Parts: sequence; structure tokens; C-alpha cells
Amino acid sequence: MLIAVDAVGGDHYPERPVQGAVNAANEFDNIEILLVGPEDLIKKELDQLEYSSNKINILHAPEIIGMQDSAASAVKQKRNSSITRGISAHKQGECAAFVSAGNTGALLAASMFLLGKLDGVIRPTIAATYPTLKGISLLVDAGANLELKPEMYLQFAKMCKIFSSEIMNVENPTVGLLNVGEEPEKGTDLHKEVHKLLSDFPGFQGNIEGKDILYGKTDIYLSDGFTGNVLLKFGESIPDILFQMLSKTMQEKGADQETRQTVLGMINDTMHAFNYEHVGGIPFLGVNGMSLVGHGGSSVEAIKNMILNAAKCVENQVNHKIVNSLNN
Amino acid sequence: MLIAVDAVGGDHYPERPVQGAVNAANEFDNIEILLVGPEDLIKKELDQLEYSSNKINILHAPEIIGMQDSAASAVKQKRNSSITRGISAHKQGECAAFVSAGNTGALLAASMFLLGKLDGVIRPTIAATYPTLKGISLLVDAGANLELKPEMYLQFAKMCKIFSSEIMNVENPTVGLLNVGEEPEKGTDLHKEVHKLLSDFPGFQGNIEGKDILYGKTDIYLSDGFTGNVLLKFGESIPDILFQMLSKTMQEKGADQETRQTVLGMINDTMHAFNYEHVGGIPFLGVNGMSLVGHGGSSVEAIKNMILNAAKCVENQVNHKIVNSLNN
Repeated sequence: MLIAVDAVGGDHYPERPVQGAVNAANEFDNIEILLVGPEDLIKKELDQLEYSSNKINILHAPEIIGMQDSAASAVKQKRNSSITRGISAHKQGECAAFVSAGNTGALLAASMFLLGKLDGVIRPTIAATYPTLKGISLLVDAGANLELKPEMYLQFAKMCKIFSSEIMNVENPTVGLLNVGEEPEKGTDLHKEVHKLLSDFPGFQGNIEGKDILYGKTDIYLSDGFTGNVLLKFGESIPDILFQMLSKTMQEKGADQETRQTVLGMINDTMHAFNYEHVGGIPFLGVNGMSLVGHGGSSVEAIKNMILNAAKCVENQVNHKIVNSLNN
Repeated sequence: MLIAVDAVGGDHYPERPVQGAVNAANEFDNIEILLVGPEDLIKKELDQLEYSSNKINILHAPEIIGMQDSAASAVKQKRNSSITRGISAHKQGECAAFVSAGNTGALLAASMFLLGKLDGVIRPTIAATYPTLKGISLLVDAGANLELKPEMYLQFAKMCKIFSSEIMNVENPTVGLLNVGEEPEKGTDLHKEVHKLLSDFPGFQGNIEGKDILYGKTDIYLSDGFTGNVLLKFGESIPDILFQMLSKTMQEKGADQETRQTVLGMINDTMHAFNYEHVGGIPFLGVNGMSLVGHGGSSVEAIKNMILNAAKCVENQVNHKIVNSLNN
């Protein structure tokens, strides 16, 4: 299966995307790679790596969309970018999926514009993986749609359930509606309506509150994209904040070198759960194609896992299952 | 100054409220207390304490509003409750303020219904104190108003600035608008409008994101009450989650007893910042009176500090300053 990889996406290109892609191809017989980006940059990086040349291909795309570029850049200003060329190649059936650790807004815009929506989808969405005491939950929407209509919550629940069970191997995923209280009558009129709409939905556990998130109360957390985005970024700040707060405490207490190492070591191991590396990327759910985005800071391991996730989405016919779920 | 204290509010009544009130009266010459609640319950508790009887008074209120009672209970079903009687006494000028660690919804409803709004206020609000790397920021609205109009953001900013400078002793408090990105054009149409409306507001630092909150980027975080409530409860869950996650890590690593004590001790000291005890309660800003609410789990120390905060609000003429700020 040929997976296109954005060679110039994220904060550490071309090293990490190229290395991650090569690792995926080296480790998995069924994976072939199409590296998308400036050819010279990619070749220079590949020169330093060992790989089987018949499994690594290059699609030249001279332009680079930076992390600060606007969402519209991919479809308006930079049509020769890795994102636009890569998704176009996927659209034309040249590869099974496109993955990138690059600009999420530009990726979403290009995916929507070039690939379109799956049959029956109101709006595609992006779910974030959220670390919890129990493992990993999905938080949807994570910023693609700031305001939602009630039907969108239901569709997002359906799409996430498929991703959760097919790709994350969760049996019978549970769903919670993020709200300001547990009772069905809590929240805005919108939330009350959504609660009603979801009441018969298999796996729906009712409202969940902010305090339930880190405990992993349900496998899927439904939220508007505004609150979801705030929570996503808040969560990502926790490990660094904790390090800083702890370092301050230990300085104040005059802790010795050994104590500092012990404490920070344990925190480091614990915060590993907040590391997005193991999860890899997340697809734009509802898009008529397979386009995955990873964190800008993705490691080589994260890039490799994103490629494997993409392959798994294709093999498990995630999009086909989404269409069936939405239209039945 | 006579401060009325809800003797049956919170998760630990009557012990903590009564003890906190007695401590405040014992430690501060200018503080006198009016304990509101079932007389027999209060007297039984007072019997165990040492205090100067001319500084502690009782207002009998036979009914108790539980933490699970509806917001309307205070103004509809339970008119002889400590909350309703206490706020009524304040309304009639019998005491300078009313404080409670009880049901926030019922307290807000009773305060709104019995005391009304200050001149020029669209909607009263409640700000939460949020621990950060720099100290404590105010998060407003924390759940009283789930959806806001642009003008409400501006009023909340004005009211919080007064509370922050007068009561929390912050010089020239800074204000940030919680949003999904830093740039002024980020967010919903509402957020763009609010950003414009605040652009000339003294201390306004523009948009802040979820990742900025724990760093204490500004002294005041403006948010709709839905997102604010989710963030508030999320933050409160962090200390326990961290303890559980760390305990799990240490068990997996086979850490010895000494290591466990060292690590959990440091975490305990660090998480002290997330403890609401030092802050005491927060007033309903914009209400025509002085009504403060504290966390249901408030300690004796927190109750005492809430009483001191109430006195400080009265002394510093917080309401007078709010009216001036809103109408100029």
C-alpha cells in the first residue's frame, strides 16, 4: 500500500517525516512510501538513511506551507505545496492516503476542498487523542468546527466510534457529552437538545463534566470545537507546567540532586502518557479520502505510527463504515 | 463589621463554617459574626469552641439547602433556609455581607432574586480563582452565564479588574480573551467582535489560548461560562489525577517506600497551589449587595478567609467602584 507523506510538515522537517517514513517502509512489508516535498531536500535527507529504494518514491512539490500560514494558503496561494500536491495525488488514486505533521488548518482546508465530503456528512471533523488515567480517549471536535448543530454531535459520535473500535481497538466505545453538570437538563438549550438526540445512541453515557475528562470516564468526549480546542491545548501544557512547578518546589525546599532526579524521573515516566508519539495522527473524519494529521512536534516514532494508522484506516475500510453508519 | 455566615453550607457543616467564623471573630477585632442556620445545630457546635459571646450571634433558619438541590430551591421551595434568611438579613441591612460554602446555583439565584443587580449591570457573574505558575488568575465566567453577549465580556473584565486590584492586590491587572488562537481574527464571530470591543481596554493583552492558562499569561481570563466551567472543574481534578498516575508509575517501577514518600511529598507541596483554601470565597460580581461563595469542600481556613474577603470587599467599596466603572 502506497502512503504519501508530507516531507516538509511539522516543526522538524525534513528529518523526522523522512526518517519516520523510511522506518515504516523498512519495518512493514506491505508499506510503500511517496515522500512529497522539495526533491533536493528529500534526496539529501534520504542519502543519510538505509532503505530499499523500490519502496521509497518522491513526488516533487517545491512550496512549503509553514505552521503559521493561513488555512487558505493550501488552496489559494501555495498550490505547489507538499500538502496540495500530496492530497491531489491521493484524490487521483495515486496513493492510498496522505499524512502530514504540518499546518492543521491548511490540511483540513485542502482535504475539504480537494477531496470533498463523504456521502451524508454535514461537516468533517478532527478528533484529538486525550490521555487519561485509563488510556486514551477521543475528544471531538478539537477545533475544526467551533460551533456545532445538534446533528453534528450525533455524526461525530458515529464517526469517532468507528475510529475508536477499528483503529484504537476499543470494544463498544462509550460516548459522553461534555457539559456543565451531569443531569440531562444541564447546559444550554443546544446541550439539552443534543442530550435528547443521543439518548438512544448505543454507548451514550450521558453528560460528563470537566472533572471527568482525565479519569477517562468515556472513550469519546463530544464537545464543540471551541471548548475542545481550549481543552486540547490546556492538556498539552500540563507536562511542562508540572516540571516547572515541581522544580520550583524542590528549589524552595532545598532538595538535593538525587531527590530532584528521582522526582523528575517519576514525573517524566508518568507524563509519558501525555505524549502523542504512540498514537500517531488522526484522520479528518468525514472527508472523502484518507488524510491524517499529526502533531507539529511529532517524533520519528509518531510519524511512523501515523503512517501505520493511515494504512489501518484504509485496510479496515473506515470511510466505507462511516458512510454506512451515517446513512442507516 | 457584622458578616453573616451560612452555618450549614458546603460538604462539612456545621463544623467548618462555625469553626471558621469563630476563628475570624477571635483573630480580628473588627469582625463580628452572624451564624445562619438551625439554632440547635449551631449551638451544639459552638459549645465545643472558645469565643467571645458578644461577637457571635445566631440567626435561626431551620431549612437546609443541599448541594444537590436545584438553583430555584432557595427562592421557591426553601424560603426558611440559611441562604434565603441570610441574604434577606443582608438585604435589610442587618449585616454587611453574606458568605456561604453551599450550593452555588441556589446562592446565585437567591442573590439575584433578593438583592437584584447593581446599576448598569447586564448580568452578575462569578469568577473562579485559577492557580497558575505565577500565582492566581481569575477565570470569568465560571458557569453563571453559559452564553455571553459581547458587552458582557467587557463588563466582566471591568468587574474582575476591580476585584483583582482591590482584593487580590494585583497592580494594573491584565486581561486576556480565551480563544482558539492568538490572532485577532481567530474564533467565532462573537470572539472577533469581543476582541474589537476590548481592543482599547486598559490591560487587554489580546487572545490567549488553552496552553497559556496554567502559565498565568494574564491576571484575568475572559471566557463564556460553559468553557469556563469545564476548565474550572478540569483544573480541580488535576491534583488527584496526578497522585493516581504517579502512584501507578511508582508501583510499575517497583519504587521503594522512601522514594514514594519523597515523590508524593513534593507533588503534595506543589499541588498546594491548586488548593482553594488560601483564596477563600469569591463574590457574585454585579449583585446589589455583598454575597460570597466558597468551594463546597472549603476548609476552616478557607471559610475564615472568605469572611475576611467579604469584609475587605465592603471596606474597599468594591460595589461602589463597580458602578462607577460600568457607568463611566
